[in-house]
Amino acid sequence: MTGQFSPAFREELAALMRWRRDVRRFRTDPVPEGLLARGLQAFALAPSVGLSEPWRILRIDSPARRAACLQNYRDCNAQALATQTDDRAATYARLKLSGMAEAPVHLAIFSDDSTPKGHGLGAATMPETRAYSVVGAIIHLWLALRAEGLGLGWVSILDRDRLMRDLDVPANWRFIGYLCIGWPEEDDTVPELERAGWETRSPTLHLETR
Amino acid sequence: MTGQFSPAFREELAALMRWRRDVRRFRTDPVPEGLLARGLQAFALAPSVGLSEPWRILRIDSPARRAACLQNYRDCNAQALATQTDDRAATYARLKLSGMAEAPVHLAIFSDDSTPKGHGLGAATMPETRAYSVVGAIIHLWLALRAEGLGLGWVSILDRDRLMRDLDVPANWRFIGYLCIGWPEEDDTVPELERAGWETRSPTLHLETR
Repeated sequence: MTGQFSPAFREELAALMRWRRDVRRFRTDPVPEGLLARGLQAFALAPSVGLSEPWRILRIDSPARRAACLQNYRDCNAQALATQTDDRAATYARLKLSGMAEAPVHLAIFSDDSTPKGHGLGAATMPETRAYSVVGAIIHLWLALRAEGLGLGWVSILDRDRLMRDLDVPANWRFIGYLCIGWPEEDDTVPELERAGWETRSPTLHLETR
Repeated sequence: MTGQFSPAFREELAALMRWRRDVRRFRTDPVPEGLLARGLQAFALAPSVGLSEPWRILRIDSPARRAACLQNYRDCNAQALATQTDDRAATYARLKLSGMAEAPVHLAIFSDDSTPKGHGLGAATMPETRAYSVVGAIIHLWLALRAEGLGLGWVSILDRDRLMRDLDVPANWRFIGYLCIGWPEEDDTVPELERAGWETRSPTLHLETR
């Protein structure tokens, strides 16, 4: 490969981005390890500030650990439901916001903000760029998995301190996101939150010139 | 398109990720507006927490504003050089860490953490997921531009308060990154920081099982 890409590839890349969804409805059949490994190769190709590669991955296989994270989500989601306004609470209650009970693969993703790798380059005035690097890697993984037909759902309705304790995470790691991975029950180009009547996508980008 | 992707597409997607670089060496010839617009369509397809789409883009065209941002970078980079250890300072001084003086397109990217869009869904325990959504959109843009042969360089060596003042940014926006976009002087699969002897990529991912 020469690093030149065709119009046909660009169209298919745009289609991939249109078909990428945050998936919360998974089949329970297993994910072949080879497909997950390919996704993680894409993850590792993401840009990172100063080449610091601050990403740290915990694969959660233990049923007890999974149950603790699921309960963490359920408690936080019950709190979130309790804070909804009257006109939105019924809609919120109907939303399925995590596939943690069904997805065969669970990854908890962290940033080691104290890593010496990269020698601090690019992160002096903006240390949060380490966390941002990890987010970029998750997007790479997300696109690569979707290209295999796999779904990914990013769960953020979690108490991070509780999760750090439940998963026995080194104190210098920052929790970025809890990822559910598996075969989606359905494919769509419309976000589930839009189909459920929660929110719509903007027809235009907010772009100003200075 | 059905949302099904072929092995050939997946290979080309992996190649795109291998060829995507943080570019700091740009030619000065202009970027066709149609290509930039296609990149921004990819940007807008990124996932966002609660469908909040918190991204805000400032396109910096004014020479005075560009000069202010470039001086911001130069001052911060001089400070960063001054903090290097003796054994690394000479290497740091040789690095080119921004294409702000040459790149034809400059975008400053922000997150509106106070947006009502999405009704707060998913961001109660982790409000930083709004910033993370904006990072994901930048990664979409980065990949889409690279598929057109265009380069993107993300500059983070900036004083954010000074940048907010210089660009007259609403106080409720959070600065995420300053993007230089243009035609790269060269293409490579090896990061420039690796070619310059600053840091190398890890041969393995940090992955533990719990």
